[in-house]
Formats: sequence, C-alpha cells, structure tokens
Amino acid sequence: MPTYPKPTQEQLVVTRLGEARLVSPLPLSTTPGDNIGDFVDDDLRALYNPRIMLGEKPSDLCFELAGARREIFFTPQDTTAAIVTCGGLCPGLNNVIRSLVLELLMNYGIRNVLGIRYGYHGLNPNVGRPPFELTKELVDEIHHKGGTILGTSRGPQEHKESVDFLVDRGVNILFCVGGDGTQRGAHQIASEIARRKLPISVIGIPKTIDNDIKYCYRTFGFATAVSEAEKVIDRAHVEAKSVLNGVGLVKLMGRHAGFITAAATLASGEANFALIPEVPMQLHGEHGLLAALDRRLKAREHAVVVIAEGAGQHWLDECPDEFDASGNLLLRDVGPFLAHAIKDYSNKVGNPANVKYFDPSYHIRSVHADATDSLLCERLARAAAHAGMAGKTDMLVGLWHNQLIDVPLAVSCDAKKQLSPEGELWMALQALTRQEKWYSGV
Amino acid sequence: MPTYPKPTQEQLVVTRLGEARLVSPLPLSTTPGDNIGDFVDDDLRALYNPRIMLGEKPSDLCFELAGARREIFFTPQDTTAAIVTCGGLCPGLNNVIRSLVLELLMNYGIRNVLGIRYGYHGLNPNVGRPPFELTKELVDEIHHKGGTILGTSRGPQEHKESVDFLVDRGVNILFCVGGDGTQRGAHQIASEIARRKLPISVIGIPKTIDNDIKYCYRTFGFATAVSEAEKVIDRAHVEAKSVLNGVGLVKLMGRHAGFITAAATLASGEANFALIPEVPMQLHGEHGLLAALDRRLKAREHAVVVIAEGAGQHWLDECPDEFDASGNLLLRDVGPFLAHAIKDYSNKVGNPANVKYFDPSYHIRSVHADATDSLLCERLARAAAHAGMAGKTDMLVGLWHNQLIDVPLAVSCDAKKQLSPEGELWMALQALTRQEKWYSGV
Amino acid sequence: MPTYPKPTQEQLVVTRLGEARLVSPLPLSTTPGDNIGDFVDDDLRALYNPRIMLGEKPSDLCFELAGARREIFFTPQDTTAAIVTCGGLCPGLNNVIRSLVLELLMNYGIRNVLGIRYGYHGLNPNVGRPPFELTKELVDEIHHKGGTILGTSRGPQEHKESVDFLVDRGVNILFCVGGDGTQRGAHQIASEIARRKLPISVIGIPKTIDNDIKYCYRTFGFATAVSEAEKVIDRAHVEAKSVLNGVGLVKLMGRHAGFITAAATLASGEANFALIPEVPMQLHGEHGLLAALDRRLKAREHAVVVIAEGAGQHWLDECPDEFDASGNLLLRDVGPFLAHAIKDYSNKVGNPANVKYFDPSYHIRSVHADATDSLLCERLARAAAHAGMAGKTDMLVGLWHNQLIDVPLAVSCDAKKQLSPEGELWMALQALTRQEKWYSGV
Amino acid sequence: MPTYPKPTQEQLVVTRLGEARLVSPLPLSTTPGDNIGDFVDDDLRALYNPRIMLGEKPSDLCFELAGARREIFFTPQDTTAAIVTCGGLCPGLNNVIRSLVLELLMNYGIRNVLGIRYGYHGLNPNVGRPPFELTKELVDEIHHKGGTILGTSRGPQEHKESVDFLVDRGVNILFCVGGDGTQRGAHQIASEIARRKLPISVIGIPKTIDNDIKYCYRTFGFATAVSEAEKVIDRAHVEAKSVLNGVGLVKLMGRHAGFITAAATLASGEANFALIPEVPMQLHGEHGLLAALDRRLKAREHAVVVIAEGAGQHWLDECPDEFDASGNLLLRDVGPFLAHAIKDYSNKVGNPANVKYFDPSYHIRSVHADATDSLLCERLARAAAHAGMAGKTDMLVGLWHNQLIDVPLAVSCDAKKQLSPEGELWMALQALTRQEKWYSGV
Repeated sequence: MPTYPKPTQEQLVVTRLGEARLVSPLPLSTTPGDNIGDFVDDDLRALYNPRIMLGEKPSDLCFELAGARREIFFTPQDTTAAIVTCGGLCPGLNNVIRSLVLELLMNYGIRNVLGIRYGYHGLNPNVGRPPFELTKELVDEIHHKGGTILGTSRGPQEHKESVDFLVDRGVNILFCVGGDGTQRGAHQIASEIARRKLPISVIGIPKTIDNDIKYCYRTFGFATAVSEAEKVIDRAHVEAKSVLNGVGLVKLMGRHAGFITAAATLASGEANFALIPEVPMQLHGEHGLLAALDRRLKAREHAVVVIAEGAGQHWLDECPDEFDASGNLLLRDVGPFLAHAIKDYSNKVGNPANVKYFDPSYHIRSVHADATDSLLCERLARAAAHAGMAGKTDMLVGLWHNQLIDVPLAVSCDAKKQLSPEGELWMALQALTRQEKWYSGV
Repeated sequence: MPTYPKPTQEQLVVTRLGEARLVSPLPLSTTPGDNIGDFVDDDLRALYNPRIMLGEKPSDLCFELAGARREIFFTPQDTTAAIVTCGGLCPGLNNVIRSLVLELLMNYGIRNVLGIRYGYHGLNPNVGRPPFELTKELVDEIHHKGGTILGTSRGPQEHKESVDFLVDRGVNILFCVGGDGTQRGAHQIASEIARRKLPISVIGIPKTIDNDIKYCYRTFGFATAVSEAEKVIDRAHVEAKSVLNGVGLVKLMGRHAGFITAAATLASGEANFALIPEVPMQLHGEHGLLAALDRRLKAREHAVVVIAEGAGQHWLDECPDEFDASGNLLLRDVGPFLAHAIKDYSNKVGNPANVKYFDPSYHIRSVHADATDSLLCERLARAAAHAGMAGKTDMLVGLWHNQLIDVPLAVSCDAKKQLSPEGELWMALQALTRQEKWYSGV
Repeated sequence: MPTYPKPTQEQLVVTRLGEARLVSPLPLSTTPGDNIGDFVDDDLRALYNPRIMLGEKPSDLCFELAGARREIFFTPQDTTAAIVTCGGLCPGLNNVIRSLVLELLMNYGIRNVLGIRYGYHGLNPNVGRPPFELTKELVDEIHHKGGTILGTSRGPQEHKESVDFLVDRGVNILFCVGGDGTQRGAHQIASEIARRKLPISVIGIPKTIDNDIKYCYRTFGFATAVSEAEKVIDRAHVEAKSVLNGVGLVKLMGRHAGFITAAATLASGEANFALIPEVPMQLHGEHGLLAALDRRLKAREHAVVVIAEGAGQHWLDECPDEFDASGNLLLRDVGPFLAHAIKDYSNKVGNPANVKYFDPSYHIRSVHADATDSLLCERLARAAAHAGMAGKTDMLVGLWHNQLIDVPLAVSCDAKKQLSPEGELWMALQALTRQEKWYSGV
Repeated sequence: MPTYPKPTQEQLVVTRLGEARLVSPLPLSTTPGDNIGDFVDDDLRALYNPRIMLGEKPSDLCFELAGARREIFFTPQDTTAAIVTCGGLCPGLNNVIRSLVLELLMNYGIRNVLGIRYGYHGLNPNVGRPPFELTKELVDEIHHKGGTILGTSRGPQEHKESVDFLVDRGVNILFCVGGDGTQRGAHQIASEIARRKLPISVIGIPKTIDNDIKYCYRTFGFATAVSEAEKVIDRAHVEAKSVLNGVGLVKLMGRHAGFITAAATLASGEANFALIPEVPMQLHGEHGLLAALDRRLKAREHAVVVIAEGAGQHWLDECPDEFDASGNLLLRDVGPFLAHAIKDYSNKVGNPANVKYFDPSYHIRSVHADATDSLLCERLARAAAHAGMAGKTDMLVGLWHNQLIDVPLAVSCDAKKQLSPEGELWMALQALTRQEKWYSGV
C-alpha cells in the first residue's frame, strides 16, 4: 500500500489537448473474441484501492487506464515527436527510445522523431547540442546497450526557451524520460504550453532506478539494478567470509527510498543488516548497529551490511545543506563514514573488524536492461506513444497493480514514493535478516 | 484480465482446520505508525476485479489476503512440517525450500522440517527414498544453485498412502511445490485428510515455468526463464544474420500458454514471428507462416522465429493422444517439424533457407533463480508458512495484482491460465513484430 | 607436444612477394631500453621443440617469429586490403575484423579495406553479394557482438575466379579467416596468384572453435566456447541430480579433436565420463561405457556424460560417407544415438536412467568473445596485418608456446591437430573423472 | 620475454628430500602409443629461451618439467598434507584446494589433508584457529564459489613456530598458495625444515591476481580478473558517452605490474588511455596526460582512462613510506588523486570534464574462477601434488611457454615479474589506444 496520501478523483483526471476525432491507423479491433487486440475504451478505469475489509464496499476512486485509443488527436503524417532523457543512467533508457521510435514510425506512421541531446540542455539552443533524427535503422540494436544514445544531463532549463524550441522545431509530442525532477520540469513545460494554448503534448515516462516515483509500482531499470546489486552483496559475502571478522559493507542507490536495498538483500539472502532511509535507527548504544554487529562477529566471525545511500544521514555531522544541479539535496556519503565507524568501534572493543567496502553505483547504472526490464520498457513506451497520439498531455504513464495507467504530472511528482516499514516487503526482510532488535527505540 | 471464468465468492473461501487461538511468536505489531511490521487482519480482502467502467460501481468479489496472522493454529514446538517438490525443474525451487525452512525454524520455532525425496514418490514408503531433515545449516547456500535439493519426479501417488505417511511421520503441515497436476494431487491429499478429520494442513506453492496457474499473475522461475530465453533468441538472431537466408528457429517452453514466448520475444526485440498455443494460425497458403517467412527473407535475407512447444499442434499428423507420467497430454514435437517444413518450402520456392534450430528447454530450467524470482520465492514461501501455521488448508498462495492471496486449491487447479490474444501483452508483441497479417483467417 | 610429425626446416620458410624496402610508418624503435616498442628482427626465430632431455643439445628447428617489421613491402596509401570470414561461427570473428581494420587504416594508413560478403562466395561475382567498405566508424562497436558482420558460408569457390576478383577490385592483401578447409582454399588462391606472378599477399588467420589447427596452440573462440560449454555441463549436472538416476548427456563440438570436451570437463569438474575422437572406446561389454554408467548410477544415483560430436563414430551403423559443402566428412549424430543406447540398456538391466540430452552447438558458437579470446584476436589480427604489409604470403599466423609465428599454409593445413591421449591435458581429465578403466581394451 | 635477469642453471635445480623409491600408485604408463597417460621422465627439461636468432645455436639453460613421477618419496597411506591460502582473494583458490584434495585422496590415496585456517596465522597455535580436515565431500562443490573456504590473512608468522606446528600435526607436505610474499614465507619454512633435517616437503602454488610472479607466464585468477575488468571498462565507457565530456576513470589492480590494465584494455577495445607502473609518464605539460585528455574531449566529447593502482605513484606528494601486514609497500591511492586532477585541469582550461570513477578491486577479486582459470587451477594443483609426493621441496609450480615447470622458491621470489614496455603486449595496446605521444619525454 502506498506511503503517500490518497488523491482526490479530480486530481486523477488527465488533461487533453482537445477532442480526439481521427481514426487510429492501428490494426486493432473493438470486437471481443475475434483474436484481434482491442482498443482500450476511454472510460476504462483502474481502481485506486484494490483491497477492502470483509463486508466493506470498495471505493470507486480510480485512475484512467493507459492504452491505444480508437480515436486519436494528431494526424500521423503531419506529426513530429521528440524524446529527451534526463538525470542519472538507468538500465532500459535505450529500450524506451527504441520502442517509442518503432511504435511512432512503424505503427502510427508519423513523420519523424527527434532525439534531444544531453537532457533538457538540448531544448535550449544556446547551451545544448542540436537534436538529431531517430530512424528505424539507427535504433535497431540500441536496446542491447546500457546508457542512452541521446545523452543525458542533470538540472532544468528555462521552460519558456524550451517551449520556443518545440515551436521552432515543429514538435507536436514531447516524451520526457526521467525522475521526479524531470517530471516537474515536464509539468512546467506543459503549463507554459497551456498558457500559450499550443497543441503540443507532453508525456512523461518515469525513470528512477530508486523506484521512488508515485503511482509507479515498479519502474524500468529497477529489476536490473536489484539483480546487479544482489551480485555485489554476494561478492561482499565472499570477501567477508574469507577473513577473520570480515565485514562486507555495501552502499546501494536509494536517496529517499530503500527499495533496492530491501529487494537486493532479500534476493541475495546473504546480508545480516539492511539500512534504509525510511527506518530511523541508532548507530551507538547497546541497541545500536555497532554493538549488534559486534555481537554478530563474535557469534559468526563475519557479517554483511547493506546500506542505502540515503540512510543514516542523521549520523553525519550537521552542516549546511547542499543541492546538485537537478535541485536534489546532496547527501553526505554515509558509506565511508560507516566503514570508518565500524573499524573504530571494533578496535575500541578489542574485536577488530576487517571491513571491505563496496560502492557499485555507476557499475549498476550503466548496465543494459535485463529481460524483465526490457519487457516493461516495451510496454511503457508503447503506452506513452498511445497517450501522446490521443492528445493526452501533462501526464505520465504509471503502473498500478499491474495495470498501465495515465496519471497527471501534477499529482505524481509532488512527493516521492517510499517503502512502508510496516508492509510486506520490509517484514520479509526483517524475517530474513532477523535484525529487528537493534534499530528500535530511536 | 484473466482468460478463465469469474469464480463465485463461495469458491474463494479458504478452508481452516479449526479456530486459531494461539498467539503468534512473530515480533509483529497491530499498531499502525510504530515502524513495526503489521499482522494481516483476517478480514482483509483483495478485490477480484480492480477495473471498472467510468460510473460503474466496483464489484466486491474478493480473495483472502495472505500474510502473518496474530493467532495461529499449530503449537510451534510440537509442529513438524514437510516439503515436497514435483514436476520439471524451475528456477527458484531451492529458494522456496530455504525460505520455508528458515521461516518455520527460525521465526516460528517449529520442531523440525522434513524434506520429501523425489516428488510425490517420496510420500510412498514402498517406492520412494525416505525423507531427510532440513536444517538451517543444510539450506544455507542452496538458493544459489539450480534444481531442487529434494529431487523431483512426475506423476501422482496413491493419496491414501500419502496420508498414511504423513500420519506415520507426524507431519502437521505439508507444503506441495508444483504445477497444476501437483496441486490437484495436493487437493486429493487434503480431501482424504478432511475425510479422516485429521488436523493436517496442505499448502500449495505454485511452480510453473510456463506461468499457467490460475490466480497467479506471475510464478517464480518465469522471470529467469524469460531472461534465459531472451539470450537464446538473441543468439538465434546472430546465427540467422551470419548466413544468407539464415533462419533462427527457437522452440520455447509453453505447453498450453504462450507467456514465455511472448515475454522473451518482447524482451529480445529480435524475433520476427512468434507462435503460441492460444492463437490459431496457418502454416500453408498465401497468408500462412511459410509464405510470410519467404517474403521476409526476400526483403531482409534473415529471420528469427520463436515457437512455444504447444503451438501449431494442429499441423502435426493426427495420431492417438499420449500422456506422460503426470497425466499431461504429450505434445508431438513441433520444433523439428517446423524446421523441416521451412527447409522444404524454401527449397521448393527456390529461395533456400539456412535453418538453425534451438531447443533450450533443459538449459533454461536448470539455471538458478535471478534476483526478481529470488525475491518472489522469498515472499511466496513466507506467505505459505504463515498460511500453514494459521491452520489454513487445501489452498495455494497466489499473486493477484501484486498482492499475495490465499486461494482454495479446488478453484485454482480446475483449469490453466492462458495468454489473452486481445490483451496488452500480445498486442505489444504484434506491435513489435508486425506479424499480424499472416495468421488471420484460420 | 604435437600429435603431428615434425616438419622440416624447409617447410617452415614463409614465402615473400619480394624485397621489403619501404620504411614502416609505425612509431616503433629498434633501440632496446628506450621504452618504445621494438620492431621484430626478421631473423628472430621460435624454436620448434622447447624441451630437451637432460644432457641433450636442443634442436635448432624453428619458426619465423611474427610481428611488425622495420621494412614493409606495400606502399600504404596505394594499398587495398580485403577480409573474408568462412565456415561456422566462432566467438571473436568481429574482434578480428575490427582489429585488422583499425591496424591497417589507423596505424599503417592504407587506402581502404573491403569486407567480402558471406565467405568465399563473395569472391565470386556470379554467385555472391558485392563487398562493402570497412571503415573505422563501421567497426567501432562490432567486437561486442557475436557472429561476423561480413557473413559467412561453407565451401570453396573456383580459385581462378577469386583471383580475377582480387585483380578487378585492386586488392593487394587478402585476409582469410577460417578453419583448415578455408586455409586450403587460401593456399590455392595464393598458388594461383604465384602462377600469375601477381604482387598479392594472402594471409590466413586460423579460426577453429575445435582448436584443431596445426601450429596454433590455442585459437580464438576456444576459451569462450569452453566457458559456455562448462556452463552447459553444470546445468546438465543440475538436471541429473534432480531426478532419480538422472543422466545429463552433453554433446559438444569437436569433429576430430576432443579439446573442448576435455577442457570444459576439467573446468566444470562435474562430469563423470568424457568421450573424445582421439580415444577409441567400447560401448558394450563389461568394460564398456554402458556398464560403467550403470555402476555409477547404482553407486551415486546420477551421472554426467560429455561426448565430442566426433567421438564414438564407430558405434554408428555403417553407411556411405557423406560430405558437407566445405568438404568436411559429415558425422552421423552420436548424441541422440547415445541417449537412446543409455535408455535402452538401463531399462534392460532394470535400473532405468532418466536421460536429459543437451546439444548446445549453435548456442555456443554465436556468443561474443570473452576477454581471453578478445585479447588473442587483437594480437593475431595485428600480427596478420604486419605479415601482409611486409609482403609475406601463403602463410597463416600461428601461436607456438605463447609466441606468435608465421607458418606456411602448405605445412599448416595438411593435417588436423589432435589431443594426445598420453599428454598432460587428458591425464588431468582422467585424474579428475577416474574413468580410466572402462575404455581400455578397445 | 622476461623482464628479469637470466638465472644460472644451478639456481634452477630443485631440492629433493631424498631418493624417491616407491612405485607410484597412479595408473599411468611409460609406453608411448598405448593410449595411457605417461609418467614424466625425471630428466625432461623445458628450455629457458625458446627463441634464437637465425643461425644461432639454442642455449640449453632449462627448467625441470613438472608432472607425475614413476617413483615417489612419501608412502601414501602414511602421508598427511596441509594446504594454506594467503594474501588477497583471487579467483580459483577453491578450485586449487579441491583439485589438490581430490588428487591426493582419490588418486594417491594419502591418509588425510588438513585445511589451515586464515593464512599463515593458522600455522601458529597461539594466534590462529585450529585446522580442519578436508574431505572429498567437503570440497565437492566449492569450485563454483569465489573466495577460499580456508580463509586467508596477510602477513608472515614466525617460521620456527610454523615448523613446530607441522611436526606436531604430523604434516608431511605443506602446500602454500599465495603471492611472492607468501612464497618468501614458504622458503623460510623450507629453510628451517632443512636446518632441522626434517622430511617435510614445502610446495608453493603461485597466486597473484596481478600476474607478477617470476617464471609463471599466467597465474590462475588472471583471466577471470581481466574478464571482470573488461566489463568495468565497458561500463565506464557507457557512463562516459552518456554525458557531455564524460570521462570514465577506472582503477585496476596492479601494484607493480600493468598486466591486468593492459590485457583488459586490449580486450575491451574502449579505453583511450592506459597507465601502468612500468611506463613512466607525465601528468602535466603539453605532452602530459591532462592536456592529451583535453584534446581527446575536444575531438570526441568523451574518454575512458584506465590506470593500474601502482601507476603514477611519482605524482603523489612525497611522504614517508608505509608498509602493510604482508610487508608490501603501501601505495597512496592514485585513483581519487587522478579524478581530482582531471576535474581541476578541465575546469581551469574551461572545458569541464564529468568524471565517473570506478574502483572495482574487491568486486573482481571475489568472483569465482572462469573456465580458463578453472582449467589452469586443475593443472597447477595436480602438478603440485605430484611434486610433493615425489619429495621435491622448497619450490613452486610455474608455467613457462605452456609447460608446467618446477622452480626453486629462492629464484622465483627474489623479484617481481613486470610487463615489458617494448614487448608485444604493450605494443598492441599502443597500437589500439594510439596514446603513444603523451607519455614520452618523462
């Protein structure tokens, strides 16, 4: 269940540029039972809450279902789309680009697709490199590679200049692939377009390796990241077991959310302690991590600790907040801090730990998407193309209880998703690591 | 949306051995907001249909939610559990065994867990090997290995003798890990137990690499199988492109369901034709596969074809049905048949294809679970342990729109899940391969 | 030690097109100790036999050492090279192409490099596709992919037409990448060139996944193939152990040589029986494989058998020899034959085996080169470029006790290399599998 | 060709504990042509220099060839062996342990094998954990895991106490698996044994991920390390290309030798600069790395730099030398230093680089051996067992031009092997990266 407050039905209504009157060129049907894929009826909805208490009536609060519409807004042969990728690397970016290009060019038959260079910088002709045309041939094999062929960057651009750029280049649909910062930028571009009453659609595709975007149960790249992170934990376990009092310490991605840490720890089955931003915990004292780790070493002579980069921030010395180019709060680096604290404490209590520290962030981000993520990219990208062609705008494609949905940007990017410390995932982790006692009482 | 008929509410009620009156030893809470994991309220339900049409009222048809209960039925220190794995190999079997053993021994503190050898044969002392005790140490590293440490076999055993065995060995909870045949066997054992009014719980854990079990959105092993299958398709693509008129032909698992074929084809992005049991299609004629493949070769000089083992069965010569030891209808092998048909046709039309045939079934089944599946195994196994300890019986743990549910065996194993030819997955595949024309008109 | 007869010194002299008088453009030196790479002196030799018996004098029989020469034969800016790849796929083909192109264009600065399409067929304008130009940009990322971007085919072409083609296209150096059949073809082309007294160099680069080319200790693709084959054996082991009397049977590449079978068996450490073409063995009788396997099953309830495709050919029914398009003797398929024989025998003796058969040939051939092979490709290709530019011809680049050598084609392709049944590799295998008794006495 | 001075013939004579008079129990033969593996004749030698200049006579300086002897020194049923692993992790340690145990117990039939815990510490009863018995069952599957089941540590122990330990425990043969520090320790133990005239054999097995041990052409773990390092370089390339002026900076293992850096750079084909300890180079100035990197960024907008941990030490501020527990000179960390220097310089010249720094050391060391290394471990371990059983001592098993040799410890561990800057490997790297100009003139 989500950690963020319930939206109102009004907040879940997606904006449309106007009435969709053109017949879709897709070879789909509306007849059930004919073995031909169905258009999605515009009135189909996905329930917000798929649970009830016995005897209760279900709530009808709901999202709009994503998918191909029978009527579309843009005339394919006159339509130009553009794609921009922003923020840190995430497995699957090239898959999304490929699937968007193939769906738009091959199936809808639009005129052309522009690739914007190096993130939102590419929407500002004064600072960015010019866009290039994305053809079927060019994207043919890119899904086997990590990274993004468009390039990326952090930080927003002046949204007025971005809209000028779209107008100059004749762009009708802009696909913005990125995290919540990117989607806030997309919302500002869409708002400026609305202010100018332009018929330009802005569609967000959520990209967050941390899996922290609202109304997206799982984002692409997450499965791959967990898989790579699991391998790192397993290697840390090997290092830890190979020396007396070995401690494998692994710092994973997760600025505000512990999803990668929790999932990789569960998948690996080898970590003894997992620390995430959502669960406050003590470092010192009898119930603190350091004492618990010492007890573990005395009992088993080795241990593995996994920490999300956003966990334990309260341990670090207070100092003025800093922000990066995307406006994200800069985290002080908890990994080396904890490595040092463990060495220090273990020496002090006369049971010196041999700490092996792993910081695999870039190593994980740069890999190509695994099959689970490739499949998700394929589905998300095609849903985004359908939404754009239907004239929806100022929205992103979400995933809610296995159903692709269209969500207004305003309600999606106003907060980050977090892992619930009382939910099933964290309970499974606690059941596995049995670390429950040491973090209570903070 | 499911391809099978809607159940009645009555069919979804799970049997209980009796009232659960013992306080659970798990360190969970019932207080929201205390950062301690919550017991699942016995009245919590997962809606059957999470969709509505705008303006409709949602139906309250629902499943029982899985999870740890505050009150349990079995006294841990007096409880013996047993685990049996049946049918073909599937990535994740050892993960499930490990998580069951750890949850039962470490967290519930039950007396012991027996490992039944070589499937249901091990429940028959006349034919099987005796069971062995599963300890924490023994299962410690098994999740990194493919296969099952218990061994497996196909086919049922006489359920009366199985129940005698359980009584003799003092087994209180039997966990049956297997496909729909296995679950039908589990249901028969549970029925015999009920007839004898014994306090023995039978809990199914669905295992199907084909992903064809009802009320299980995704089963463990499926993600790994798709990932391995994707690699095979990619290699078939390399072989196909390396010679003139190369055709990479890949036969994948899927006796009755095309999930692996569809998902791997989408993940790979390299196949031109995908054939599944759910979609009837022509081999011959202008709109048949052979002619379509020939057109593809003339245009591009190479092609990749993926076929589920259960597809195209109507092409094969009629001959009397045969069944294997599990009672599954034996499929005649469509792979070599199609390879031959392609060579034959292409020679006849003077454009000879160079067919490279791939049959990776065992290669895929024997691999260890990837991170996505490891995580799912962990969740399913712990939910199964909770259900058993709470005294539920004659049920399996399902997954419904991302929620773990408890489902009566009778309603789960009466039919197989299939891929909907009009749903989102197959539509995405059609959008990718653009193969739509050749199979119509059958 | 080699299994083929000792050559004469005369046989090891490489042909030259003429005197090399041009100063090489490579930035190398001839001064030891200046930290700049050295040209290879034309008089440097690699000893044929690096062993002696204590007290003996070493023989001075020797090979010409490969490497960059201070003086070259072809004027770079007037030189056109061509590359052709022939026969079955082998990991590393694209690496060889890339390194040749980069060395010739970037370092020697030659005019252009042509890629010949689909093997020797591409040298015949009547049957083949026309060549295309290989540029730095085109080859930039190909080494990460399996297969060959040039395409390949089996079988020779009329060498007179091939020489006409080279003359027509102005080709000065032809690089032939392929097995012993390909190198025999290269020798015929070189002979025709010599007959016409043309200044065209023909340089062979050995490509044999079976590792059976004379004077090549290890060929590219072999390490990768062994690595992939090891994984297959490990999976066969998983399958075998998971059922009662499971037998994992793996057929590997190796028409005339057991190198892959022996190396993969040793690397895996999981196989109990390994069968290769070089070691005759019995199938039936008390000391035959079938009885030995039955004893193993009775003792351990599972077994893994690895067989090279060329082993056990004498078991198969006598029938007239057939040859493939490359002139290779067609082997009857020993894999299914042996699977059947094992089932048959085990049923007959009342201890039925559950055989799982693996035939991973294409799966292994199509993978991209691992690091060990990538490095070897890089070294071989650059050595081939040096030989060609220096005006050597009718030779291939070999590897002799870790030294790259230039070997006349005539002496290299007159026989195949085989594994010595009395040498260290096979002894290590016997020590591991302890299978020694069952094959003796044949 | 080696970078260290030529030994004398006297230095290459291996010590023997006494005459080997017992008939070996191994089922080998001395008859060529009988298809049974041959014992190695004690007089067989491997030439030191396998090269000559044309017309020269080869030198007869030679090594003793390794391998099984017809006569052995130790009576198997009375023999106890012990294995110790020391220093940092290296892929293949468990393979070596497994093969030693299997060869000694299964083939020679010795009494037992002890596993020494946590390196040389385990030979000192005052500080170390007691040894445990290594059985066939215990080592059965360890070769699929990274690390060492024995544990390891750095640093020597007092060799007198070590010899006391061997006497107390009745150890007849001690196998020391480790780097040059470990082998120096082994030599001291062997010297103390000689001083006491004890019939205990000490056999070294070289373990160095850096590949820097004399008379070992390639050591186990090196191929795996190169393979993992290649993947890191490829990921650094992805990160570098994805942002404007991206620089992927990878620090690899190699304290004194650039083998991993050179081989991984060649295998990857994606790095533009490679820096190793053997080649002095400038950081600053027109011909320095920073200016060369800036020129590369201006031309191509991204770059990849690979640096061995021991390179560029002269750049770091002078400060007093420090040593680790093994007595190795502690290197100051050149990775972060160079990352900082690049950022600094690029900002100063107004062309800011976006540096992504990779430090994968533990990630690489902890992986299990790939097939190439598994095979080498198998060969080395069995050769070591043969040497020990034959009563050789104070020696290690080397690899010289593909032949396994026995080398006295004294001559092997008196210096480290380095990469020759004028040899073929570094020339190939220069040919690939074309970085030749910037390092000259230092």
